Amino acid sequence: MGRIGQVHLKSISNRIENAEVVAVMNPSERGQSFARNYHVGEISSDPDVVFNNDEVEAVLICSPSDTHAEYIQRAAQAGKAIFCEKPLDLSLSKIQEILDVTEKHQVPLMVAFNQRFDPDFAKINSMVTDGEIGDLRMIKITSRDPSPPPIDYIKSSGGMFLDMTIHDFDMARYIANSEVSEVYAVGKNLVDPAIGEAGDIDSAVVILKFENSVTAVIENSRQAAYGYDQRLEVFGSKGMALADHTKKDNHVLLNEGGIHQSRPMDFFMDRYVDSYLNELNAFIQAIASGKPQPVTGDDGLKATKIALAANQSMKENRPVKPEP
Amino acid sequence: MGRIGQVHLKSISNRIENAEVVAVMNPSERGQSFARNYHVGEISSDPDVVFNNDEVEAVLICSPSDTHAEYIQRAAQAGKAIFCEKPLDLSLSKIQEILDVTEKHQVPLMVAFNQRFDPDFAKINSMVTDGEIGDLRMIKITSRDPSPPPIDYIKSSGGMFLDMTIHDFDMARYIANSEVSEVYAVGKNLVDPAIGEAGDIDSAVVILKFENSVTAVIENSRQAAYGYDQRLEVFGSKGMALADHTKKDNHVLLNEGGIHQSRPMDFFMDRYVDSYLNELNAFIQAIASGKPQPVTGDDGLKATKIALAANQSMKENRPVKPEP
Amino acid sequence: MGRIGQVHLKSISNRIENAEVVAVMNPSERGQSFARNYHVGEISSDPDVVFNNDEVEAVLICSPSDTHAEYIQRAAQAGKAIFCEKPLDLSLSKIQEILDVTEKHQVPLMVAFNQRFDPDFAKINSMVTDGEIGDLRMIKITSRDPSPPPIDYIKSSGGMFLDMTIHDFDMARYIANSEVSEVYAVGKNLVDPAIGEAGDIDSAVVILKFENSVTAVIENSRQAAYGYDQRLEVFGSKGMALADHTKKDNHVLLNEGGIHQSRPMDFFMDRYVDSYLNELNAFIQAIASGKPQPVTGDDGLKATKIALAANQSMKENRPVKPEP
Amino acid sequence: MGRIGQVHLKSISNRIENAEVVAVMNPSERGQSFARNYHVGEISSDPDVVFNNDEVEAVLICSPSDTHAEYIQRAAQAGKAIFCEKPLDLSLSKIQEILDVTEKHQVPLMVAFNQRFDPDFAKINSMVTDGEIGDLRMIKITSRDPSPPPIDYIKSSGGMFLDMTIHDFDMARYIANSEVSEVYAVGKNLVDPAIGEAGDIDSAVVILKFENSVTAVIENSRQAAYGYDQRLEVFGSKGMALADHTKKDNHVLLNEGGIHQSRPMDFFMDRYVDSYLNELNAFIQAIASGKPQPVTGDDGLKATKIALAANQSMKENRPVKPEP
Repeated sequence: MGRIGQVHLKSISNRIENAEVVAVMNPSERGQSFARNYHVGEISSDPDVVFNNDEVEAVLICSPSDTHAEYIQRAAQAGKAIFCEKPLDLSLSKIQEILDVTEKHQVPLMVAFNQRFDPDFAKINSMVTDGEIGDLRMIKITSRDPSPPPIDYIKSSGGMFLDMTIHDFDMARYIANSEVSEVYAVGKNLVDPAIGEAGDIDSAVVILKFENSVTAVIENSRQAAYGYDQRLEVFGSKGMALADHTKKDNHVLLNEGGIHQSRPMDFFMDRYVDSYLNELNAFIQAIASGKPQPVTGDDGLKATKIALAANQSMKENRPVKPEP
Repeated sequence: MGRIGQVHLKSISNRIENAEVVAVMNPSERGQSFARNYHVGEISSDPDVVFNNDEVEAVLICSPSDTHAEYIQRAAQAGKAIFCEKPLDLSLSKIQEILDVTEKHQVPLMVAFNQRFDPDFAKINSMVTDGEIGDLRMIKITSRDPSPPPIDYIKSSGGMFLDMTIHDFDMARYIANSEVSEVYAVGKNLVDPAIGEAGDIDSAVVILKFENSVTAVIENSRQAAYGYDQRLEVFGSKGMALADHTKKDNHVLLNEGGIHQSRPMDFFMDRYVDSYLNELNAFIQAIASGKPQPVTGDDGLKATKIALAANQSMKENRPVKPEP
Repeated sequence: MGRIGQVHLKSISNRIENAEVVAVMNPSERGQSFARNYHVGEISSDPDVVFNNDEVEAVLICSPSDTHAEYIQRAAQAGKAIFCEKPLDLSLSKIQEILDVTEKHQVPLMVAFNQRFDPDFAKINSMVTDGEIGDLRMIKITSRDPSPPPIDYIKSSGGMFLDMTIHDFDMARYIANSEVSEVYAVGKNLVDPAIGEAGDIDSAVVILKFENSVTAVIENSRQAAYGYDQRLEVFGSKGMALADHTKKDNHVLLNEGGIHQSRPMDFFMDRYVDSYLNELNAFIQAIASGKPQPVTGDDGLKATKIALAANQSMKENRPVKPEP
Repeated sequence: MGRIGQVHLKSISNRIENAEVVAVMNPSERGQSFARNYHVGEISSDPDVVFNNDEVEAVLICSPSDTHAEYIQRAAQAGKAIFCEKPLDLSLSKIQEILDVTEKHQVPLMVAFNQRFDPDFAKINSMVTDGEIGDLRMIKITSRDPSPPPIDYIKSSGGMFLDMTIHDFDMARYIANSEVSEVYAVGKNLVDPAIGEAGDIDSAVVILKFENSVTAVIENSRQAAYGYDQRLEVFGSKGMALADHTKKDNHVLLNEGGIHQSRPMDFFMDRYVDSYLNELNAFIQAIASGKPQPVTGDDGLKATKIALAANQSMKENRPVKPEP
């Protein structure tokens, strides 16, 4: 019942037809109290209320990252389908364990790379797969947050590449439809010295070379004065498709000083509100139809390997190949 | 439990905190069946389930227009706050009766001119009231539907001015913050001859002169090949503010043939989804706080008088003053 | 050698291949001095230097409006092709005399409705004639100047409809490709009381009904705080085409306060710089090829009749048919 | 009297007040014939007509690149101010000789990096220098040509970085107002195999690290199906400024298939028409006022060093420091 857990609870209760929240586990009274507004069967601080519940077909794991591996293991052993917020884990070995246990128990696992389900980005992807762009040559992603997270969050985040850029690594893989053969990363601490003191960066450019000759350029900043800036550009032999940032409203004002519009949205949960609903629907639809999940544990693993290669590239100032 | 009744039921059930649907009256099994998905206390084909229910504080009237007057009367007599879809009625005398009965019983009445609650149009209005446009001079409204309604609907609609343009009449009054002193209307049958044979028009331009010297120009069409086109422009001594049509998504494609974007939305219930939620919240908030409703029965009366003057102006090809 | 005369002299000297300025007549030393920079054969304050010059094939009349009729007569008698700035004259009888004399002497006459030659508006027109809009239903023109002309100019201008709106009347006829059957005009004095004291208006809306069922709505203001606003919208059975105002430059700034762009250009001679060159080329090309002029004296007459009908409509507050 | 020589001749003849073309040297009859239309004093195939002419204060060198060094030397010896198209030369040693000789003879030298004088890009630069962007963090440049030049041109061009990207290297230095400390370049042959066979690339991404912590990302393609795409984005602590591609016209068409606009211009000489005039004015203005030239020989040298570092980086797949 953190920020994203609340979003998913509301979505299933109110906006998804063929699913129901049977049980909610949350350690705090505050989280349990939130859940009480939503006709949930059982609410408890004991995880067994979920994992030992025969009515539960699927589990959404929205707890802190360092609990993901344990809960995935328990859910897999209980034979539940699993939807897990990113990252699966920060260490490759733990992610590999996760993949092993879900494979062993033959349970579906979806990693919540929600941006794939944003209508604008999904439209761009469908244009690529439909051939409207021709042979893909270049992918350009800009992701800038309105302001950096608290220093404490940053310290336990695994660093910007694993925490923030990982969405863009996944998006680039998704659009390129190929694997990354090499990463070159530049990172800087320009926004707040405290971030540098915590050992992290706040500004970065990463070049990804894909096996199919596509190149991707990702640019990130932890701070943009004008709001949440998320852009995707794909360029190919037949043209270019763009998805621009999303404004707060559509008004235009013309006055003596110029032409003015509202700034981009400044909170990712507003910006991506549709994507959260769409990803849940896709997860539930895949379970219902017995089809593969649209984003798999392997996608989580691959994105993590790219992030780790980016970290190494930045430190050694040279192109680095991700682990195979 | 028609189209808009379903929207409101969903909103109250899922998205409005301080309200609950206690009872639903619907004559058809299909409508009642829809309501059964939403934790509603009582569902019946008998209106008494609503009007005689002490738990019911407010009534939403989403039934066919020719039942509005009767239901408003019953609700008023029962002391319920009333939210009624437009039009209150097609005849001035019946609307006057409605106003009389709600005044006699001292119940709040809100007419559902939802477009006032669209975020873009509300933003334009707030810019006007905040003085950002300076002295208001001109209001321009464009409303074009993707395609005309069925001929049967048109025959019982009261004509385009009372059915469709009435939203724009209300919007112009809302923005101008003044009363209409004179109307000049031009109407044509250009879209479908069957509309003309039914005695109606499908294309129109109306000039409204307001008492405060503001002029409004409204242009309507029952058919726009490119989708639902709703635009509002206000012009004053300090500048101009615009709200443009709303696209299906935000992608841009550049190819050999040019630069391409998705067309405007083509269904008013998608276009105005936020406005339906916002108007309900405003209604409930006014009841809860004991404040006046944001759109009153008098607003419904005034808009109807303008529509009738437009009808007369069109027929007699001369400027006409609305009934006082 | 007024403002527009200088533009045309520069264009012919520098940018038009198959024409040359043989002689310039200007009463002032200042005007003559300007002409001396441009390799002109003869420069004088005597009109004979132009009209009696055998080398002169065509005459551009860029002098004050009240001299147009006389110079056209002299040019026609001398057998020269004539390009005349608008208006030909403010009185219908004098315009008729102009048409008579040019017909008698069989000389081509082009009226300089330059906006037809603006690339954006010409593109819109070609889309209409190419059928891209389908059956044309509605034309909407917005013309707003940055600020009103001096009161002395207004006093001798013939009023806003004859001075400013006349461009829009011509544009509407050009796009509609039909004649106006009726005019309804609303005019107000909102910008500067001095304009009203001079007997003129500064804000107007005009509805034109065309014989072919197209309707046009023209809206004018003598003052727009944000610059020169010229927009054209055409709407038909297959869609809509727009030409928007033209910005000073194309930069976009995003900051804490929103998204900002440069305001529209604020001088018509910057806005229409291309149209001046294009209209001259069209005039010269028509002479060279022996084809009819693209804008004729009759176009000037028709636009004037619409303007006079607008004046009468405004005064009598009723729809008025232009003189046949 | 090649393409760009013709542009400059026209500009000086027609649009620049305080300069005059005294003499033109061109080896071909066709070039000389072009010059004869422009009131030029002397026209010859002999360079002495320029260099030995006492009336000549400044020389524009628009001849093939491999003649630049020689003509600069002759002009410098003759004491003329020099405007030279890019590149000064392809070899660093020759460029150094050029700088030495112009310094020795104390003649001004301007390198024609015209894009600095494009109104949109100049506006972006002035916003950076005025502090509107705050502390600059990131520069992003996209340059894509509509289609690749002939293979013969490519073979003698020095490669894409020296021929095409050099404009972007200069732009990045201009905006960053700092020197490049390191270059990482990725180049690919995706457009036409013949370009690869000629030993060149047609698609590239380059990261520039500047001494002042600014990073620049440049992306190039020799082919864009939708026209000439030139974009500049600057991002800093206070916001972002953008200059987008420039469309052929400003019309918008809405129809059943969507919203459509004209594609970007597809010829750099149309796209940059204003910049050619502005750079010449800046050159002449600097001479007239005795101030330093706005783009110097050293700017040409620096951009070339970056291009050579990019070549080396691409070949060795590692970040490379430009020659000091």
